Amino acid sequence: MSLMQETIKKIQPADSGARAKAKARLEQLIMPHWALGRLMDLAMDLAGMTGSVKPAVARKTIVTMAGDHGVAAEGVSAYPQEVTPQMVGGFVHGVAGINALGRLAGAKVVVADLGVAADMSELAKSGKIIDKKVAKGTANMAKGPAMTREQAQRSIEAGIEIANELGGATDVFGTGDMGIANTTPSTAILAVLTGTPVPDITGRGTGIDDTMLAHKIAVVARAIQVNAPDATDPLDVLAKVGGFEIGGIAGLVLGAAALHKPVVVDGFISTAGAMLACALCPDARDYVIAAHRSVEQGHRFMHTHLGKAPLLDLNMRLGEGTGAALAMNLVEAAVRILTEVATFAEAHVSEAQ
Amino acid sequence: MSLMQETIKKIQPADSGARAKAKARLEQLIMPHWALGRLMDLAMDLAGMTGSVKPAVARKTIVTMAGDHGVAAEGVSAYPQEVTPQMVGGFVHGVAGINALGRLAGAKVVVADLGVAADMSELAKSGKIIDKKVAKGTANMAKGPAMTREQAQRSIEAGIEIANELGGATDVFGTGDMGIANTTPSTAILAVLTGTPVPDITGRGTGIDDTMLAHKIAVVARAIQVNAPDATDPLDVLAKVGGFEIGGIAGLVLGAAALHKPVVVDGFISTAGAMLACALCPDARDYVIAAHRSVEQGHRFMHTHLGKAPLLDLNMRLGEGTGAALAMNLVEAAVRILTEVATFAEAHVSEAQ
Repeated sequence: MSLMQETIKKIQPADSGARAKAKARLEQLIMPHWALGRLMDLAMDLAGMTGSVKPAVARKTIVTMAGDHGVAAEGVSAYPQEVTPQMVGGFVHGVAGINALGRLAGAKVVVADLGVAADMSELAKSGKIIDKKVAKGTANMAKGPAMTREQAQRSIEAGIEIANELGGATDVFGTGDMGIANTTPSTAILAVLTGTPVPDITGRGTGIDDTMLAHKIAVVARAIQVNAPDATDPLDVLAKVGGFEIGGIAGLVLGAAALHKPVVVDGFISTAGAMLACALCPDARDYVIAAHRSVEQGHRFMHTHLGKAPLLDLNMRLGEGTGAALAMNLVEAAVRILTEVATFAEAHVSEAQ
Repeated sequence: MSLMQETIKKIQPADSGARAKAKARLEQLIMPHWALGRLMDLAMDLAGMTGSVKPAVARKTIVTMAGDHGVAAEGVSAYPQEVTPQMVGGFVHGVAGINALGRLAGAKVVVADLGVAADMSELAKSGKIIDKKVAKGTANMAKGPAMTREQAQRSIEAGIEIANELGGATDVFGTGDMGIANTTPSTAILAVLTGTPVPDITGRGTGIDDTMLAHKIAVVARAIQVNAPDATDPLDVLAKVGGFEIGGIAGLVLGAAALHKPVVVDGFISTAGAMLACALCPDARDYVIAAHRSVEQGHRFMHTHLGKAPLLDLNMRLGEGTGAALAMNLVEAAVRILTEVATFAEAHVSEAQ
């Protein structure tokens, strides 16, 4: 059995007993019933994921997966492809958005090369990034499959390996991405998995004008037409119109779920990965926390499809894991409420009349 | 000149020069333009409030103001009045929601008695709460003014005194409230200051049923009718249909603004206080950060009136300062982005084509 199949087999639904115990305690805290709303929902979810009414969340790891995209050649992004390795350099030097927000969250930020179209061997050798390179960028999906089926599975298994390698020192995972042009494959994945018309879900990514947006819509539509991905076969969708870092994110979600650990899913690209993971294994959904709603207009369609309400909505559209880093504070807050607030009986406070 | 008048005179609009400098730097960070959205808006605001492109935000103090309300006698709340001092006890023992979230935020939680209808002298003597008691609860506003005009000014000045006393050890203030029945005066203040019909803005507070909600609407309407507060005179509004802790919160907002310090305003009751502060001194608005949108249905009307978009929307309705505590993390995040992320030039990253 492949690592992917093994991992999927390990994934169990959330622990309903621990959820129920958490709910019972939360309903007795010294406050009006469920007065902390979504924090309490989240606390209950975390109990279910971890199987504990004192969910461990102290050790946080955000994995920022980098990969390049052949479809960048179609001119779908405002930025040149060289920015992908440059930003990986920024992550390693600690000067990017994810570094600042990761430090604030008390999260370790781990950078993984799933398929950057540049030689990253120096950083890999020195241990500053995890080397899981499948290839130097995908092929141009507007002309044919982005990758082979084997490469698709390899990218997912790379993400699972990362979860397994880091799982011993991690209570909560966060996902992140870097890859010039990667809103384009993410949009294609969303279109295929949900059947939503491409123009309704294609956004401006890093910031393209109306002309480029129309072009991007055409490129996504062409990629789907040329490749005819099978919507019922997530590996086929990833291979035809995906990306290596998106596969890696899908694998991280599966790996986290198999370890009974929460995974805070960042923005548009990360949620495309999570959709593939949940298509491969619906029970993985129980371990997914939707961090935020991005400006990217397709993102809300992804959340609707997954049945997840994002925690934050701050007009962000950076990726890297920045939304996941911010949401880590709410994960911690949820656990603090569950574990540090007294009940009416414990505190001798009068209940509602 | 009274302390209130002196404080109002000191309040200056936000520093437009520091705002502009912050904006210039944020626009050059290694990310697509303004890709961190509202965090970047907030970073710019914080620069304006503090007059610095490296705004100090490390020392956080949340002041939870407690007071009781004569209108509780009308049966507008699901809880008995004895819960106010009981919860103050909970705050002092560190077992309430605000304690858990305050600890997470790295914020000091300071409890002030503005008008609890019980003897709190033990806690005051031992220094566990700040004693600014104006009276043991307001009068029943459904039958006459909640307090005298002198008491209204006294409650505001108590809040200013607290800001001044704590300001030397505080970079960012947060507001909080505790007081059984205090959504009722807050709703009345909102109705008077904005002219919105009472049924549109009256919510369920700690959780009342349809019958009690209809009764609460009638009580608020009667209080306004009986007292005929002058909407153009914030002190009159506070005196006729307000509360001591609401006056204290208004004073804290004025005091923070006079000190050029940000004040993170919590939920429905706190925002009623902030509305009074901004009615007394429109420039105080520049120092207000709206923490979250509460379940209480009038809250969005308050934000619209103040022209503030809340940072969080998590179905919360607890008060105490819990929303302010959560939003502190976003305040810190905004400053981290402004001060820790490199520019394109600093990091040698290619810009948009």
